Amino acid sequence: MLERLLSCIDDDLPNSLERLFKLLEIPSVSTDPAYASHCDAAADWLAAHLKDIGFDADKRSTDGHPVVVGHGTRENRRFLFYGHYDVQPVDPLGLWEQDPFKPMLQDTPGGQVIRGRGASDDKGQLMTFVEACRAWKIVFGRLPRSISLLLEGEEECGSVSVAPFLEKNAKEFPAELGLVCDTGLLADATPAIITRLRGGVNVEIAISAANRDLHSGIYGGLAVNPVRVLAKILADLHDESGRITLEGFYDGVPELPPDVAEQWRRLGFDHGEFLGDVGLSSPAGESGREPIEMIWSRPTCDITGIAGGYQGDGFKTVVAAKASAKVGFRLVGSQNPAKVRESFQAHVLGSLPPDCDAEFISYGENHATEMATDHIAFRLAKDALTEEWGIPAVYAGCGGSIPITSMFKDILGMDSMLIGFGKDDDRIHSPNEKYDLASFHKGIRSWARILYALDS
Amino acid sequence: MLERLLSCIDDDLPNSLERLFKLLEIPSVSTDPAYASHCDAAADWLAAHLKDIGFDADKRSTDGHPVVVGHGTRENRRFLFYGHYDVQPVDPLGLWEQDPFKPMLQDTPGGQVIRGRGASDDKGQLMTFVEACRAWKIVFGRLPRSISLLLEGEEECGSVSVAPFLEKNAKEFPAELGLVCDTGLLADATPAIITRLRGGVNVEIAISAANRDLHSGIYGGLAVNPVRVLAKILADLHDESGRITLEGFYDGVPELPPDVAEQWRRLGFDHGEFLGDVGLSSPAGESGREPIEMIWSRPTCDITGIAGGYQGDGFKTVVAAKASAKVGFRLVGSQNPAKVRESFQAHVLGSLPPDCDAEFISYGENHATEMATDHIAFRLAKDALTEEWGIPAVYAGCGGSIPITSMFKDILGMDSMLIGFGKDDDRIHSPNEKYDLASFHKGIRSWARILYALDS
Repeated sequence: MLERLLSCIDDDLPNSLERLFKLLEIPSVSTDPAYASHCDAAADWLAAHLKDIGFDADKRSTDGHPVVVGHGTRENRRFLFYGHYDVQPVDPLGLWEQDPFKPMLQDTPGGQVIRGRGASDDKGQLMTFVEACRAWKIVFGRLPRSISLLLEGEEECGSVSVAPFLEKNAKEFPAELGLVCDTGLLADATPAIITRLRGGVNVEIAISAANRDLHSGIYGGLAVNPVRVLAKILADLHDESGRITLEGFYDGVPELPPDVAEQWRRLGFDHGEFLGDVGLSSPAGESGREPIEMIWSRPTCDITGIAGGYQGDGFKTVVAAKASAKVGFRLVGSQNPAKVRESFQAHVLGSLPPDCDAEFISYGENHATEMATDHIAFRLAKDALTEEWGIPAVYAGCGGSIPITSMFKDILGMDSMLIGFGKDDDRIHSPNEKYDLASFHKGIRSWARILYALDS
Repeated sequence: MLERLLSCIDDDLPNSLERLFKLLEIPSVSTDPAYASHCDAAADWLAAHLKDIGFDADKRSTDGHPVVVGHGTRENRRFLFYGHYDVQPVDPLGLWEQDPFKPMLQDTPGGQVIRGRGASDDKGQLMTFVEACRAWKIVFGRLPRSISLLLEGEEECGSVSVAPFLEKNAKEFPAELGLVCDTGLLADATPAIITRLRGGVNVEIAISAANRDLHSGIYGGLAVNPVRVLAKILADLHDESGRITLEGFYDGVPELPPDVAEQWRRLGFDHGEFLGDVGLSSPAGESGREPIEMIWSRPTCDITGIAGGYQGDGFKTVVAAKASAKVGFRLVGSQNPAKVRESFQAHVLGSLPPDCDAEFISYGENHATEMATDHIAFRLAKDALTEEWGIPAVYAGCGGSIPITSMFKDILGMDSMLIGFGKDDDRIHSPNEKYDLASFHKGIRSWARILYALDS
């Protein structure tokens, strides 16, 4: 029967692709209010799509963008699949070689790829699961047992509304394990179940001073310059060794247990290759740390955006009235996101010279998560992945934050099994995002195998 | 005869205004290549206008925007008037209460003002001189003796092309003194002849690292972040006392001579009022310096623009491939602009971590100037200004850079007499720029009085 399921997936791939393209064409950029109606349209599309397969599905409103919920049966809801239909903004648009929302299949030296915003993160990935369910329905005449889905629309802007939604509707989700498809293969080849994720705190700060932009000749040297104030505040976030200077920041940051360190060593992570793919060569994190620690088990602070003064072509002799920056922290262990945010705010406020004000905008925060792997599903999934990819599946860490995992833990009391098929060169969050056609195809087959193993 | 000249100016003011508005309507933003044809149109308009008054005038091409040259007579060219027809960019456009290039007369608590980009800097100011010449021609049937004009179109982007033009055509300008109308009244009321100007160096730097924007979850902590590198480089430009840290930066910065310090004290500069006008209160320059020194006689370094990463609404978890900043230095005494630029570049290059590259764009540089005031014109102009404004005219400093003054000195071997009628609240380089109608009207009358005193 498994063979029939996999054959069905192989045969239906052109149609699976066509359906994915439909979803990719909807510009559901969640962080920009101008795209709100498109987020709504993506949710509508998915709800209709799940219904079409046979799920009891609908779009559910939240304080922000809607979520889509689908249940296979009324009673049996052991596994809750999660994905997100929202995507990152597309700027700088000029660097795209195509319209980001006109997806296309392209031949590349590495094989065929699906090109477009969200191809990998996360529309392509979530559709691997949905397409596996569709094939299942075709082959078995029913949906796989025990499956519910929750597809959200705010993952790229902090997953702010999904927690209140889960709190309010916790009884609807009596699952014992989350299934999440928003991660990648290890070193682009090895199937991996991610068992630890960094948390995050995303904050914007704006420093303002004079009531208008000033002429740098007339006021320069006398008037405080908020761009300079901001640069100093940001520069002071790290010391010479690359450690973050915020008070109490490292509270709750554990050293890596020796057995995990040993397991990671065996993974043979090649940082030269990893960085080389993006034109870099030198690990830029804390001195004395292994590269794999820098991305999986150490907390970070990155300035993700900065703006102030004149940014056009040419030169303008101006002391700006205002300057702003977006700062993202990645958290590990039991670091407390609220405390990190407060410590950052205290650092900013404590560094402000006279005549300057600071404003803060919070874009969500979540703590790091580490999964217990004793649920039987982990062993079954590992075997299924090994079978599909021909390479033994591994447990691995991940530097990113997937806020839902901590919500599943806190609100629904369950761990998550994170399986995904992205590659390091998928350019997620960047221009020309892609998803390997092989990732999509074998991703659908992987979920089919996992569902088959779990369907009892 | 002087009374007839002044009456003519008073009577013709509505027409003078109308002509100024025509010039203000041309969006001659010099720093942005998209406006090149408008710069050309402004030069055409001025050349035609000067011809109409009786000058032997035409538009002359340079390597950049054209200059406009007008001569009253073939032989006698003792005084060379200078102004610039180019203006600053208008962004942020949303802060304008009108179209910046649809000038209008507005009633304000402080009297009527001419509102629009360039109203004060420098179209309104240069037209005070042109209108004085026009009235002269009407009253006396001839142009004032000994006058030439040079109107350039690149003052707001470094006056790059006017120096080669002057070098090539030096014989055409055998003047003994420059007359420049691009400065202001002292404390908004006292007529002033500016005798010292700061020089300037304007540079843009761009730091680049990875070959594309990276996901801060996947690469953050391991990949170098050019925004952070830039923030550190910029923060390190000043020490705790507000001094600039570049090697050799203070070479050639003189202490203020006691007699000048004493004269400046007598001017009664009120920094509380000066800063209060723009919503500030505290002098932010070098510790231990007088506020008036900070803007007139001390060198400065201001970040005039910064950009990197995601700048839209919301949050994007990205480690940018590139970050850039525009940095402007104001120079005094005998500071060498080229050495300052080189020292800045050395600082940047010396601060670059592995995997980072730096690119530089230069937007012009010029040294500080100090004028000898022994030419008879200074005394005559001081008397004329005192007469017109009813307040004794003074010699003063100015924090801005007017590149032409050092070129006049270096290439034509002459000092300049800087007289202008701008006010501190003219919002030059900012949204809603204005020029008091009184500045325009009394400015024309001031030049008429000065021309009358010089006409011998």
